[in-house]
This record gives sequence, C-alpha cells and structure tokens, in this order.
Amino acid sequence: MNELELIRALLPILPTNASVVTGAGDDCAVLDVGLADRHLLFKTDAVVEGIHFDDQTPGHSVGHKALARCLSDIAAMGGTPLCALATIGLPRGFDPARVEAIYRGMAGLATQYDVAIVGGETTTNPERLFASIAMLGTVGQTSCLRRSGAKAGDALFVTGTLGGSRAGKHLEFEPRVREGQWLAGRGTVHAMIDLSDGLATDLRHLLEASGTGAELLAEAIPVSAEARRRSGQSGAPAPLAAALTDGEDFELLLAAAASDAVALLDAWKSAFPQLPLHCIGKITAEHGLRIRDRQGARPLDEHGYIHFA
Amino acid sequence: MNELELIRALLPILPTNASVVTGAGDDCAVLDVGLADRHLLFKTDAVVEGIHFDDQTPGHSVGHKALARCLSDIAAMGGTPLCALATIGLPRGFDPARVEAIYRGMAGLATQYDVAIVGGETTTNPERLFASIAMLGTVGQTSCLRRSGAKAGDALFVTGTLGGSRAGKHLEFEPRVREGQWLAGRGTVHAMIDLSDGLATDLRHLLEASGTGAELLAEAIPVSAEARRRSGQSGAPAPLAAALTDGEDFELLLAAAASDAVALLDAWKSAFPQLPLHCIGKITAEHGLRIRDRQGARPLDEHGYIHFA
Repeated sequence: MNELELIRALLPILPTNASVVTGAGDDCAVLDVGLADRHLLFKTDAVVEGIHFDDQTPGHSVGHKALARCLSDIAAMGGTPLCALATIGLPRGFDPARVEAIYRGMAGLATQYDVAIVGGETTTNPERLFASIAMLGTVGQTSCLRRSGAKAGDALFVTGTLGGSRAGKHLEFEPRVREGQWLAGRGTVHAMIDLSDGLATDLRHLLEASGTGAELLAEAIPVSAEARRRSGQSGAPAPLAAALTDGEDFELLLAAAASDAVALLDAWKSAFPQLPLHCIGKITAEHGLRIRDRQGARPLDEHGYIHFA
Repeated sequence: MNELELIRALLPILPTNASVVTGAGDDCAVLDVGLADRHLLFKTDAVVEGIHFDDQTPGHSVGHKALARCLSDIAAMGGTPLCALATIGLPRGFDPARVEAIYRGMAGLATQYDVAIVGGETTTNPERLFASIAMLGTVGQTSCLRRSGAKAGDALFVTGTLGGSRAGKHLEFEPRVREGQWLAGRGTVHAMIDLSDGLATDLRHLLEASGTGAELLAEAIPVSAEARRRSGQSGAPAPLAAALTDGEDFELLLAAAASDAVALLDAWKSAFPQLPLHCIGKITAEHGLRIRDRQGARPLDEHGYIHFA
C-alpha cells in the first residue's frame, strides 16, 4: 500500500462538522466561520531534508520554498493569504545560523505577500531538518476556485513554462498569488490547481474531481528553457516529457469557458506582461487524458508517458 | 544557543499584519478576521517518535496525544476548537495499520469535541514517525484568556493533579476544553496557560507575560497518585518536585481575582464534580517565583528546584 492508497482509505474516517465547505482533497480546505462573503482557506505543507532540499541548500531557500508551497495552494483557490505558523524539526547539532536563514527566507517572502508569521514551534528531529508550514487565507465565497468545476468544452490554460524545476526554480519560485486572484475574479474560470506533481498528474487530479477528461495539444505545452537544455544530457527526459512529468513547477493550471478563451488571453497580457499564459488543450466529456500531436490523439498514462500505437 | 534562545532571537524578524491580535508567545495565536464578536485561534504542535512517544506506543495513543496537545492549547485560551489538519511524516517501511491507528486515535478524539479533520498530508521522514497537527478554533473577543493578564493579589489555581504523567497520562489525557470555556466565561479569570513543561516552568511563562511574580503554597499543590507512587523508586524525584517539574500534565493553570476565589471553587465543584480545582498560591507584585512551606518562603529556581537556605 503506497501513501496515496493509504490516504484514500483513511479519508472516510475523518470527522467533519458544520464549518466545512470543502474538506480533504483540494488544494486547501475551505471553511465557513460566519463571515458575510468570504470563506477561510486552511493548508499545511512540509519540506524534509534529503527529500525536498538537501544539506547544501541555502537556509534562505529552504524557508522560501516551505512558505511558497503553501502560498501556491492559496493561489490555486484564488485566495488571499493571511498568516502562517512555522514548525521546524531540528537535527542533532543544528547550526543556529542555518535556522535563522530559514526563518529569514520565510519572513522575506511573507512580508512580500503581507502574510503574518504568528508563531509555531521548534522540536527535535534528530536525523534531518524538516519545516512544516500551516497557513490561513481567505477567499470570496462566490469566486473560490476548486479542482472540481471543469466542464466539457472548457479551454485548458497554464501559467509560465513547465519542466526542469529541480535545476533551481523549485527553490526560488514566485507563487502565483496575484495571478490566482485575478483569474478567480474573472468569473469564467471553472476549476484551478497548482502544479506540484507535474502537469500529467495534477491535471488528472483536476479531471477526477470534475468527472471529465481532457485532450492536450503537444505543440502548445510551454516547455521551459531548462527542460530543453537538460534534454541533451544522458538519462534526461525529452523536453515534452519533462514538461508533462517533472514536478514542482508551481504554476497554475485552469479550465475556463471556451467562449472567453481569446479575451482571457488578451486581458492576461495586459495584466501580467512578464508571465506567459498558454492554452494547452480542452476538457472533454469522455474520461481519460489524451495528447494530440501530428500523428493524432493518444492516451497519456498515469505516469505521464505517451503510449505510442 | 539552545532552542528557546534561538526562537527568542528570531521573534523580531517575523512579519505581522492587521489581522494579528496576539502573535507568537501565547498558547495560540489570536486573529481578527472580521467576525463580529469572536477571534480565531491558530496553533500547531508536533510529536516525534523517540521524543514524545516511542515505537511501542500504540498508534491510537499517538494520534490521541497529537490532537489532544493542540486541544489543550485551545482550552488554555478559553476557546472552542473547530478543525484540524494532520501532517504525518512516515519512516521507511512504515506499517499501514499503525498509521491507520494514528488517524483513528485522532478521529476519535476529534469527534468527541466536534472538530473536523479537513485534510493534511503524508510526507517522508525516513528514520522516524512524526505527526504535526495544525488547529483552528474560535474564542469570544472579550472572554479570550491570555498568559498576560495576571494581577498582583490574584489567586492561582490548577485543575487536576500534577506529576508522573510520563507513566501513562501523557498518552491518554483529556484536554480541558469544556473547563477552559467555563473558566473564560466566568469573567474573573485574568490569565491562563496549559501545563506542558511542568508547573514551575509554565507558571514562569505566565509570570513573565504578566510582569508579576508568584508565591506557591507547597502543601496546596495537588500531587498525583502516580508521582507519589514513583517517588519510592530509586532516582525518582520527591512527590512535590515531580508535581513542580514533570512535564505533560496538560492541566490548566490560572490566575483569578482573589475576591472570587471561594465562589469560584464552589461553582467549579457543581460544574465539574469529577475534576479537582485547587488554589495553590497567589500572584505577587514582587517578581520571581517563591514557594512557601513550614520553614517559610524560598525562591524556586528556573528548573523548579527549591533553594534550601
């Protein structure tokens, strides 16, 4: 039994109550605490040494990444981050200067997004450092975007470029908070998710939640310069495969009304001239994930690999 | 530099914003999100294998303890818990049945207090299991109890009995949620904290936050049966020392108006006939912590040891 299967088996035993609008299974939990027109967003995310960063990663980058991952989840709902708690597990013989750098990395990014860090704790984790962030945000009750709203015929869009994040972007990425709010405010976006596990996997999460399928256009998928550069190296995936399956892009993937597709792209260019938005395919009533290139449409398997007939 | 010194050095760099009523340094952060008469409470707490439990501890108890520790912090503010996220770090070769038991332990206690578990995540922590809980609650804006409100002349009270928790209570304790709400609603309680690090240490936190001192009455401190039983064993502390310095009692310590002391004890007996409440001393204008026995009043040092003249 892997982690994902375990979590799926455990979901039914988790208690709920009247405050829960959306529980486990979206980028954030959504809570009604009695505010007139907003809901709360609630999220935790942990990074562990040797898994999400290593002992050579600058402390500032560890802190930035830990906080940015939670901000990316708030962004994926169209929300506004509010405050965070930081839990740091300290290994034996930890270096206080490294821990201070982690806090400074978190604090710098938090300041940029007007997020208060209201406490947390340090505990002992003898073999390796870990940093877990708990974050609260708010979102308009009617503008909150979930994974579950995609409709057949919707156009699929992605921000930025994909693939090769582990070469450096995963430590320095800018969470798409303002972009997520802008998209949520447009009124024609039906579903959104942030890309943490790779386009093929995260799109599948959105499709499962929405009860739909999708067809991607291979030529439209924006491959990052880093994924192209690395594709020449031995053992590195082809650029398109990297864009489909590399994790930690932390871009936004969204499904919007096809009727708004052209106007949305135009308005985006004015609002965010530095960051590309690409239409990469469409939502289909037929379940499953397919990719279309010059040879036609073929299924994309669970691991993002294209099945050649 | 130890953990506490490190945290104190880092507190000034943590950003704040308009939502923060009370940031780092109390049992929970207190947030104003625009509710008419309530504030939000926000807290995280982690337990780590080999530190807070061991590999023989039943999974159910690990889950119970992890959630109960956060509930105890909500209780210490007089709050009502609302929902939680659970972050579980899984070691190599984890036993799915043990992880399920942890979730069942959390879910059982959460159900008792109408707390929703709205998600979380599992991640990898190769050498040992850890479980971190993030919790949200609410509290009346005017009834919220902090560590900082104690006044000279206040009477000091503690719920339950103290010491010897590591023999078993630390895994099974009942968080004092209803008791905390009752105390907050009385209107004469000025400051409260939950006992996680031991009476001597946690009282010192309350005194520092309040800018006061205190005098404890040695004979009035309720020593648990377990602390008395263990005191006969070689190397075990004397019963009073155990009650002062053993951690993880998870009882409530509070300072209340002396004029209400007798009435408070009477009303408590009717409200909570199963759980003792003891008056154990008083708040003093003079700083420092003293303990009075038949030989007079003497200072209690930072580690809870009584200085004999």
